[in-house]
Amino acid sequence: MIHAVIMAGGIGSRFWPRSRRSHPKQFLSIVEQATLIQATVARLSGVIDSQNIHVVTNERYVDTTRAQLPAIPAENVLAEPISRNTAPCIAYAAFHIHRKDPDAVMVVLPADHIIRDVARFHETLQVGIDKSAEERSLVTIGIEPTYPATGYGYIQFDPDDRGADGQLQAMFVRTFAEKPNLETAERFLDSGDFLWNSGMFIWRSDAILHALRSHLPDVHDAFSWMAEADIVDAERLEVSFSSCPAISIDYGVMERADKVYVVPGSFDWSDVGDWKAVYDLSEKGSAGNATDGQAILHDSARCLVSAQDRLVAVVGLNDIVVVDTEDALLVCHRDATQRVKNVVDYLYTHRLDEFV
Amino acid sequence: MIHAVIMAGGIGSRFWPRSRRSHPKQFLSIVEQATLIQATVARLSGVIDSQNIHVVTNERYVDTTRAQLPAIPAENVLAEPISRNTAPCIAYAAFHIHRKDPDAVMVVLPADHIIRDVARFHETLQVGIDKSAEERSLVTIGIEPTYPATGYGYIQFDPDDRGADGQLQAMFVRTFAEKPNLETAERFLDSGDFLWNSGMFIWRSDAILHALRSHLPDVHDAFSWMAEADIVDAERLEVSFSSCPAISIDYGVMERADKVYVVPGSFDWSDVGDWKAVYDLSEKGSAGNATDGQAILHDSARCLVSAQDRLVAVVGLNDIVVVDTEDALLVCHRDATQRVKNVVDYLYTHRLDEFV
Repeated sequence: MIHAVIMAGGIGSRFWPRSRRSHPKQFLSIVEQATLIQATVARLSGVIDSQNIHVVTNERYVDTTRAQLPAIPAENVLAEPISRNTAPCIAYAAFHIHRKDPDAVMVVLPADHIIRDVARFHETLQVGIDKSAEERSLVTIGIEPTYPATGYGYIQFDPDDRGADGQLQAMFVRTFAEKPNLETAERFLDSGDFLWNSGMFIWRSDAILHALRSHLPDVHDAFSWMAEADIVDAERLEVSFSSCPAISIDYGVMERADKVYVVPGSFDWSDVGDWKAVYDLSEKGSAGNATDGQAILHDSARCLVSAQDRLVAVVGLNDIVVVDTEDALLVCHRDATQRVKNVVDYLYTHRLDEFV
Repeated sequence: MIHAVIMAGGIGSRFWPRSRRSHPKQFLSIVEQATLIQATVARLSGVIDSQNIHVVTNERYVDTTRAQLPAIPAENVLAEPISRNTAPCIAYAAFHIHRKDPDAVMVVLPADHIIRDVARFHETLQVGIDKSAEERSLVTIGIEPTYPATGYGYIQFDPDDRGADGQLQAMFVRTFAEKPNLETAERFLDSGDFLWNSGMFIWRSDAILHALRSHLPDVHDAFSWMAEADIVDAERLEVSFSSCPAISIDYGVMERADKVYVVPGSFDWSDVGDWKAVYDLSEKGSAGNATDGQAILHDSARCLVSAQDRLVAVVGLNDIVVVDTEDALLVCHRDATQRVKNVVDYLYTHRLDEFV
């Protein structure tokens, strides 16, 4: 059966002050009415039964996750006692699902992306699911790049595998590339055989467990007790996570494994990485301003205003982002939204945790 | 005796959202700990006894005025039922004071200016007070212009009256000029015989009453009943104000009267006209940022942040003003602070009075 594993452990510090440690990005309504994680689940409708949708999240977000996703069985919300990046998270989910369903195919998805072309997304998933049936193949979804982004990793595929007439098919992965500098990113874009690494994966549970054993044996072995356990024991789980290095599945497994394939995702996609991305995704009114809540923009253009309970007036300013919350306010240039995480770092180091 | 009349009827809409209809600029602590009206009164210490300090304000601000100025007799706070600009306000105060003290000299001051060189200010007042003793002369204080301001009216004096060696003396006023355009303002500045019109006046009560009778007989006659009245009757007062045109003392009297003199004020002076003026008056920290309250400025320069109960973070922005209040927030370019009043106009016309 097809299972989903939604990874929802992030903190989303680039979405401060709306995103907080107690209520991070994936649980927020950003751009749309539904929260990002609700939209991620809704997007699977018709492909994966909600009984087979799992969420891995930090234990402090378990209640929020269950509250936001009432259709998902409570036991499918898997608590991480500590965050150790994606490889331990995926090992945990893979053991959990494999024990219930040894023939499981796992679709692994981040909780905080926006994709609006659901039909094309489903088509892409299906190609990946079909490919994952091949012995031990690991499949990822790559995004057709639209500009020389320096904020994403890239995946180089074998151009001979490119389907004719835009037909979707899984293509052999030659290499995973780290986030490039601009020059390299331009070269990647020009070459035509690079895709953005989206962090979406499809594989059989036995295939990923086999790959983990080969390439990250420590991580595999830390969770192997789950293969025999009837219930997930919180204390043993804490020991498992504590013993793991913090390592991504990309770096730990995908870059090292042999049979890795990528399906090109030609649907619209955003990882909603910062407030600038929210601006890009938002409907704009006159002068290119995007507003949420009660906002007055006077002689101002191309601004994003996310108000909440208060009136926000912007006068004589272009290209700024204003995010207003009950106890903290952000005013930021639209080209500086990546640096919002520096404010969060500052808050941590200056013992202003109450605002994080 | 010397009396002061502090005019405190303004709304200060350029200071929105800190300044509100219910609590305007003159009652706010701007730049300094003391409120502007408290500082205006404190500045008279040693020159005018607090028993002789009067405040004219809208009746809705009478309680606030009395609360902020406990040293001033309650009956010295004169309520205006409606605002009719400065001429009716001054007529009202002049009749009130003249009845108590027929030999009164009145020093008329706006409630919302900042002057820090108190010694020089007192010296200037004294020259004006001495001049006012001459039969029916009306004296105003002009400010030595430091740049070609287009936001102030100007006063042209007779350059032959300029004191030698910077000695202060009252100079004959040739003309009052409206707010000029930049070209004219530059010409005024270059000529050396123009001063800014500060709205500060000194005259004997009998002199101003005589001038009102000559140049604004309607206004004079509207209040003449006060010469005979033992108590100020609120209903009669309302009739008096209602019958008056809204006219300034500058336009209605000073520009028309014969014996008008100006004392040049060489003290530092600001009418604290907008948030930009507050920035200019504030102490700056690193990168030229001026902050009040809990503010984090990251990659930002020359900003003014006036926070209150919340944390304000500014990222990647220069030359902006952020004013945060409980129910409304302003984000403004530092060169657009004059346009804040447009927001207030918008609030009025769009029935958002709760924010005014």
